[in-house]
Amino acid sequence: MNEFLSSLNLDSVIKIFDNGLVKTVIVLVVAFVMNRIVKGFIKRVIKKMPDDTRRAETVMKILSSITTAIIYFIAVLECARVLFGVNPATVIAATGVVGVGISFGAQGLVKDMISGFFILFENQYAVGELVTISGFTGNIVQLGLRSTQVRNAKGDLFTIPNGSISEVINHSRGERQVIIDVDIDYDADIDFAIEVLKKALDCENNAELAFITQTDVLGVSKLSESSVQLRVTANCASGDQFAAERALLKVIKLSLDENKISIPYNHIVVVNK
Amino acid sequence: MNEFLSSLNLDSVIKIFDNGLVKTVIVLVVAFVMNRIVKGFIKRVIKKMPDDTRRAETVMKILSSITTAIIYFIAVLECARVLFGVNPATVIAATGVVGVGISFGAQGLVKDMISGFFILFENQYAVGELVTISGFTGNIVQLGLRSTQVRNAKGDLFTIPNGSISEVINHSRGERQVIIDVDIDYDADIDFAIEVLKKALDCENNAELAFITQTDVLGVSKLSESSVQLRVTANCASGDQFAAERALLKVIKLSLDENKISIPYNHIVVVNK
Amino acid sequence: MNEFLSSLNLDSVIKIFDNGLVKTVIVLVVAFVMNRIVKGFIKRVIKKMPDDTRRAETVMKILSSITTAIIYFIAVLECARVLFGVNPATVIAATGVVGVGISFGAQGLVKDMISGFFILFENQYAVGELVTISGFTGNIVQLGLRSTQVRNAKGDLFTIPNGSISEVINHSRGERQVIIDVDIDYDADIDFAIEVLKKALDCENNAELAFITQTDVLGVSKLSESSVQLRVTANCASGDQFAAERALLKVIKLSLDENKISIPYNHIVVVNK
Amino acid sequence: MNEFLSSLNLDSVIKIFDNGLVKTVIVLVVAFVMNRIVKGFIKRVIKKMPDDTRRAETVMKILSSITTAIIYFIAVLECARVLFGVNPATVIAATGVVGVGISFGAQGLVKDMISGFFILFENQYAVGELVTISGFTGNIVQLGLRSTQVRNAKGDLFTIPNGSISEVINHSRGERQVIIDVDIDYDADIDFAIEVLKKALDCENNAELAFITQTDVLGVSKLSESSVQLRVTANCASGDQFAAERALLKVIKLSLDENKISIPYNHIVVVNK
Amino acid sequence: MNEFLSSLNLDSVIKIFDNGLVKTVIVLVVAFVMNRIVKGFIKRVIKKMPDDTRRAETVMKILSSITTAIIYFIAVLECARVLFGVNPATVIAATGVVGVGISFGAQGLVKDMISGFFILFENQYAVGELVTISGFTGNIVQLGLRSTQVRNAKGDLFTIPNGSISEVINHSRGERQVIIDVDIDYDADIDFAIEVLKKALDCENNAELAFITQTDVLGVSKLSESSVQLRVTANCASGDQFAAERALLKVIKLSLDENKISIPYNHIVVVNK
Amino acid sequence: MNEFLSSLNLDSVIKIFDNGLVKTVIVLVVAFVMNRIVKGFIKRVIKKMPDDTRRAETVMKILSSITTAIIYFIAVLECARVLFGVNPATVIAATGVVGVGISFGAQGLVKDMISGFFILFENQYAVGELVTISGFTGNIVQLGLRSTQVRNAKGDLFTIPNGSISEVINHSRGERQVIIDVDIDYDADIDFAIEVLKKALDCENNAELAFITQTDVLGVSKLSESSVQLRVTANCASGDQFAAERALLKVIKLSLDENKISIPYNHIVVVNK
Amino acid sequence: MNEFLSSLNLDSVIKIFDNGLVKTVIVLVVAFVMNRIVKGFIKRVIKKMPDDTRRAETVMKILSSITTAIIYFIAVLECARVLFGVNPATVIAATGVVGVGISFGAQGLVKDMISGFFILFENQYAVGELVTISGFTGNIVQLGLRSTQVRNAKGDLFTIPNGSISEVINHSRGERQVIIDVDIDYDADIDFAIEVLKKALDCENNAELAFITQTDVLGVSKLSESSVQLRVTANCASGDQFAAERALLKVIKLSLDENKISIPYNHIVVVNK
Repeated sequence: MNEFLSSLNLDSVIKIFDNGLVKTVIVLVVAFVMNRIVKGFIKRVIKKMPDDTRRAETVMKILSSITTAIIYFIAVLECARVLFGVNPATVIAATGVVGVGISFGAQGLVKDMISGFFILFENQYAVGELVTISGFTGNIVQLGLRSTQVRNAKGDLFTIPNGSISEVINHSRGERQVIIDVDIDYDADIDFAIEVLKKALDCENNAELAFITQTDVLGVSKLSESSVQLRVTANCASGDQFAAERALLKVIKLSLDENKISIPYNHIVVVNK
Repeated sequence: MNEFLSSLNLDSVIKIFDNGLVKTVIVLVVAFVMNRIVKGFIKRVIKKMPDDTRRAETVMKILSSITTAIIYFIAVLECARVLFGVNPATVIAATGVVGVGISFGAQGLVKDMISGFFILFENQYAVGELVTISGFTGNIVQLGLRSTQVRNAKGDLFTIPNGSISEVINHSRGERQVIIDVDIDYDADIDFAIEVLKKALDCENNAELAFITQTDVLGVSKLSESSVQLRVTANCASGDQFAAERALLKVIKLSLDENKISIPYNHIVVVNK
Repeated sequence: MNEFLSSLNLDSVIKIFDNGLVKTVIVLVVAFVMNRIVKGFIKRVIKKMPDDTRRAETVMKILSSITTAIIYFIAVLECARVLFGVNPATVIAATGVVGVGISFGAQGLVKDMISGFFILFENQYAVGELVTISGFTGNIVQLGLRSTQVRNAKGDLFTIPNGSISEVINHSRGERQVIIDVDIDYDADIDFAIEVLKKALDCENNAELAFITQTDVLGVSKLSESSVQLRVTANCASGDQFAAERALLKVIKLSLDENKISIPYNHIVVVNK
Repeated sequence: MNEFLSSLNLDSVIKIFDNGLVKTVIVLVVAFVMNRIVKGFIKRVIKKMPDDTRRAETVMKILSSITTAIIYFIAVLECARVLFGVNPATVIAATGVVGVGISFGAQGLVKDMISGFFILFENQYAVGELVTISGFTGNIVQLGLRSTQVRNAKGDLFTIPNGSISEVINHSRGERQVIIDVDIDYDADIDFAIEVLKKALDCENNAELAFITQTDVLGVSKLSESSVQLRVTANCASGDQFAAERALLKVIKLSLDENKISIPYNHIVVVNK
Repeated sequence: MNEFLSSLNLDSVIKIFDNGLVKTVIVLVVAFVMNRIVKGFIKRVIKKMPDDTRRAETVMKILSSITTAIIYFIAVLECARVLFGVNPATVIAATGVVGVGISFGAQGLVKDMISGFFILFENQYAVGELVTISGFTGNIVQLGLRSTQVRNAKGDLFTIPNGSISEVINHSRGERQVIIDVDIDYDADIDFAIEVLKKALDCENNAELAFITQTDVLGVSKLSESSVQLRVTANCASGDQFAAERALLKVIKLSLDENKISIPYNHIVVVNK
Repeated sequence: MNEFLSSLNLDSVIKIFDNGLVKTVIVLVVAFVMNRIVKGFIKRVIKKMPDDTRRAETVMKILSSITTAIIYFIAVLECARVLFGVNPATVIAATGVVGVGISFGAQGLVKDMISGFFILFENQYAVGELVTISGFTGNIVQLGLRSTQVRNAKGDLFTIPNGSISEVINHSRGERQVIIDVDIDYDADIDFAIEVLKKALDCENNAELAFITQTDVLGVSKLSESSVQLRVTANCASGDQFAAERALLKVIKLSLDENKISIPYNHIVVVNK
Repeated sequence: MNEFLSSLNLDSVIKIFDNGLVKTVIVLVVAFVMNRIVKGFIKRVIKKMPDDTRRAETVMKILSSITTAIIYFIAVLECARVLFGVNPATVIAATGVVGVGISFGAQGLVKDMISGFFILFENQYAVGELVTISGFTGNIVQLGLRSTQVRNAKGDLFTIPNGSISEVINHSRGERQVIIDVDIDYDADIDFAIEVLKKALDCENNAELAFITQTDVLGVSKLSESSVQLRVTANCASGDQFAAERALLKVIKLSLDENKISIPYNHIVVVNK
């Protein structure tokens, strides 16, 4: 024992550190500890953010797994170098030659996932909401990290990778305003027409329009080719907009008919030669 | 024998490890073992996923072959270095110069295969389903890792690399809704027309519409140029949508004729000067 | 003590510097000090810029956090090298292999944030303003560093990453000019029509047009297919442009009617064969 | 002799290996042997694939020549290094500076050849088949590894690099279905018209339609502006589709004429004011 | 003193140079001097260019700040290496890993500034000028190094990064020519019409056209569907083009009316069956 | 002499090889010899290809000059290293920094030349031939390695870099087929019309059509809005297609007139309300 | 002196070469000489090309300045290394980090200049010529290495960077052909109309058409909806094409009027129901 201790001078300790196995163990321990520290750090940062629990967990899982991958990859490289003398450059370069093509091809995948992360994180849309993505309008069926699925009224199922989504229109957030341009004849009395529309669209006294919160007749929006356009607006809850539009159109048609204000067909002046 | 053993001190062992052949054998053994471990790991991960057997196998085969390629490439590089003193950098750089062009060109191939992998993995469409891909509508004939083949009603065979597929519309998942906008005359009685359509489309009492599960007349969808549009919807099983639309159109036409509600041609008002 | 001092020659000092722990401490101190200096420098530069306080803070925070990230990453690399003999190249290369795909994918994110920074910095638009971005017109709801949210009159919520915004049209800065092209009959007296319009649009004496600051009838802007176009302009405060256009259209229609100047339908000359 | 043998201890052998010329010979031999092995391996893999002989050979030739190029390039680099002390890095870097521009420019060429390889390998189209590529419809005249030539009915010769071909429509695989939408008057009796068409298109009893295997009248496909559309389908062998369409159109026209069912011109309702 | 001098042999001087602090000072001095030299050089080059003072200064400031940044960055790297033994490769690589994403994202920023530099340098447009950029026509409000702001007649403020500007149309440089195609009836006498137009557009004798420098009637520019087109041109000062067009249109309309030359509506020949 | 020879042992020979000048000479000689060998190899490969002499020479010249450039660049680098101790890495890196921008910019140039090479090599078009490139139709005026010039019938000279040419339509290879769709009245007798056309287009007995090798009347190609379309085809030599089309159109018009088969104007059915 | 000479053995010479200052001088001298040689070489190559003097000078200046930049940059790097021990890698890497963004952004600039070089070199257009670039037609005002300026008839000044110019249409090279399609009535006698046009367009006997070198009436180019189209061509000098077209249109109109051949309006057949 004494001999051992006496031999335990600094030099020998350093030599032990030079020993491959010991180094490997140290590397792995350091990797393990660092991984813990980083994960703890991420957890703490996430907690501070004003975010509901489910989303915070998603974010944490993604960041943790990326960190873990990097740290253990470094550890493996160090071990391979220390134990078998494998040059890390060799491993990386070899991985690189096989991997460069994959990387280029895979960047689309990464882009998809970053986009997906931000869609989740910024809460751009949620399952069930009515959205327009890339010209396709429908309800969100599934919202993954890589792709989104939307189903339209006809039942078509639309799948799009999140990286191809840049502009999103969400039709399900907040109150909706329906805008209808009513065409009346050039010969019609504008003020009388506005009066008629206002009375017809009085949603408080019309059972059919009861689910509409507010209507307004704004005035003349356009002097178009064959008609004077009057703009009508109506507010309703999200999801009621299509029913509201149909109810309004019917009420408008009937009230104009009743008051002999015609909705004109296209007009043409014929000059005979 | 004694001499051999006595000479078998640590130094000589280390020297043996320095020997090229021994190193080569070790490298190959390590590569073989690592390959096994990684494959086992992939197998275990795949098993845990809620996935039908066939697809799990596809995924496993792809990941395994990539891993195998990388591990043995590293092993070959190490062997070349150990045995013949070939500098790994030389091999990689040489491969690189020949390969950089190939890599850039081949990234399309990798992109195709990653896309193909996710189409399979996310089960975006399957053989026989009716889809619209890149503006071409038809049934999936073949679904490979690199490309997809679709055949339309005319018999045209459409081949597209998976990497060019970003937005997929699948018409064969779940129940279908047929939407028909019926044009009626501006002079027609809207409520009567809706009544007529509702009676005509009563699919429970109409043998021709027996395969349609539900129909509805929603109301006025548009005051268009020469007609009032009424929206009709009908639900049916996937695959029946075209037959359903044809059956509905015929029933609508006949019922409107019967009730003297005309489907108007384009109207024009002529002013003679 | 004497012995210690006598041993404290230059050689021993240098040796201490060679010691890993000491080096690490120095590296960290240097990193800390440099970080402080750079942050101070940024603060001073920002202060000199003619900028309101809130924006200056945003800029400073971004620049500071980037600088901090770089400086401490270098410090960590140096420490890893000094303490455990980890080759920085290994760490960087390993990070690289995992990171190259991420980098390529993430460049979109960086582009978004740089764009967002300049939108804030150049004050291109602010919350509440009416803008047209990527063909979508609405009011800014939220303006983040990565994305912008716009809500249109119908209530649609449009989300777009800032990197996809290159051309912005802001409708809420300064006075607005409404431009209306009035169609009159080819047989009408142009000078009389201009006179009529000028009198009708006299916004100082017309209560309905009181919120319009100035109107002008510029003259004949086009000899179009069936009408002579007269251009009318009106100035109003930002936000009033839609109300102004509606008010003007009504006044124009009524005054032309009153003076028997017709707004013509499309004309066609029919030659009978 | 004895002296030679006695001097042939391990050290001297190693020294011989250090000798440049010997090394060169070994490198070349190894390159030659590896080339053989890889080629044999490729041959064996190709043989196992369920592929006709000609294509298997094409694939094998391409892979072999790429492998040969890489292996001998490595060998040349090693020889240059061993014999003349030329640093491989120098050669590669120099090649790189001249080659980087070429590589970027040449990636198009590589992309063309990879695409060409897969067109051949997946048998997307063959010489003589009628295809639509990049909006140009014609028969394949030549199918090279880099480009494809198509000649249309007019005799125009279209040349396109394979890398620019992503979506291919092949009109020559399997049976063809001709789809014709017949317009009949809104006043016509739909059931009678369907009866007339069915009788006229009875291809088993009509010599002119003998080459058509099957016809069907599906029903009302659309209530269009001025006509009711009935959909007719017919199956025929690939290549007969244009003749089939012409024969069907003539038969349909004659049978409708015979039964006084008119194919309507566009209708317009004129309201005189 | 003597001792010092005697010890001041070459070796000791070299040793001093090896000393970190001295090296650092030298590096900084060299950096400072080189910076001065380069700046002087740039100043001299700029002076020789035939350029107004303000622009020359802009160019000089940009080039100087880039040069300064590079020179001091090199100096800092050298100091870090010399003083603390920090490997420059470590710093650069670390900066690189953090920076590669930023670089890719930031290239847009650099592109913007290079474009902005050339817009200024080539004097493509200036504040106040009427331009068309990316389909938006208006007057330049602000011209920065990164972006340009344009305001149109309606008051819309358009902001575009300079890097997105490739094609610029400037409507404010030199004299303007207004081109008007006058439609006259197919039955009209062409030579008489040309005579009428020439007399009407005699801008020297017409007070309303006094600001137009020259007018010309070129002849028959097109035999269009319902009219013979005569091309009229007029030159005016930049900025007057819209007023000129309006004045010309009115004069043309009145003179044709006066001479009973009709501007025809669309013609159609009706064959009754 | 003896002394010299005695001193000429292996060591001294090796030392000579270490001498810079000798090494330089060797490098240059090796470069020269390799250049010769590669050129000879290229010549032999080219000779084996079934290619006309002029093109083979073009190819050989290009490949030779690229090879020469690379070989001598390597030689110069080696000489610079051997003679002046200039680090090849320095040269290459310096060239790189200046060159990276140039390389990126120049890749377009390389792409142009590779495209040009394949246009020549695959003989896609030749001077004088009528082609359609990038939507511009005209005759090839000049065909360079970098760009192609086309002149259309109007005399416009179109210059396009070869790299921008991907799809080429060549109208001058082989026999041409003219396709004409003749519109006849819906009331006309189809069989009679086909008979009339067949007789009129009998090119063997019609002097005006003597240069047409073959004509055919295929049948009803379409039931269009106001007419029944009959498809007529005619074959002629390349270059005669425009004259052929004009001759055919005249003959068709006259023969239909003669037989009272009208080419119908657009039809419309008017319903008076 | 003797001592000096005696000490001047090879070793000391080599030592001198090792001395920094001497090395620097040598490097600079070599750089200077190489620069001269390369410039001379470029001059000689340029001289051999069949090129007018001005353009040859432009090319030479560009190539010379690039070469000079590279050679002196290498020299500066070597000097910095030799004199101050600055590692070239440090300089290049540092330049790189600052420069990579700039490089990416600047590649557009390089692309512009390479394009500009080839526009000059291939003489694609010259100042004053009428061209169509990127859809804008006008006369070249200025042709720089980076950008081109075009002014159209209206006076709009169009600036485009040369790198954005890929397809150029030059309207000012060689003789022009004007192509006019004359519409005549379906009832008109085609042969008589051709005769009339031929007589009217006899440019040798018509003073108004004296500047037209040749006219031809090709025949029936199309049987269009309401007219038979006859194609007329006329050749004239470059620049006269617009005047020629106007003169021809007038002559055609007058001659057809004179011979009672009508230019038909659109025809429509009305069927009354």
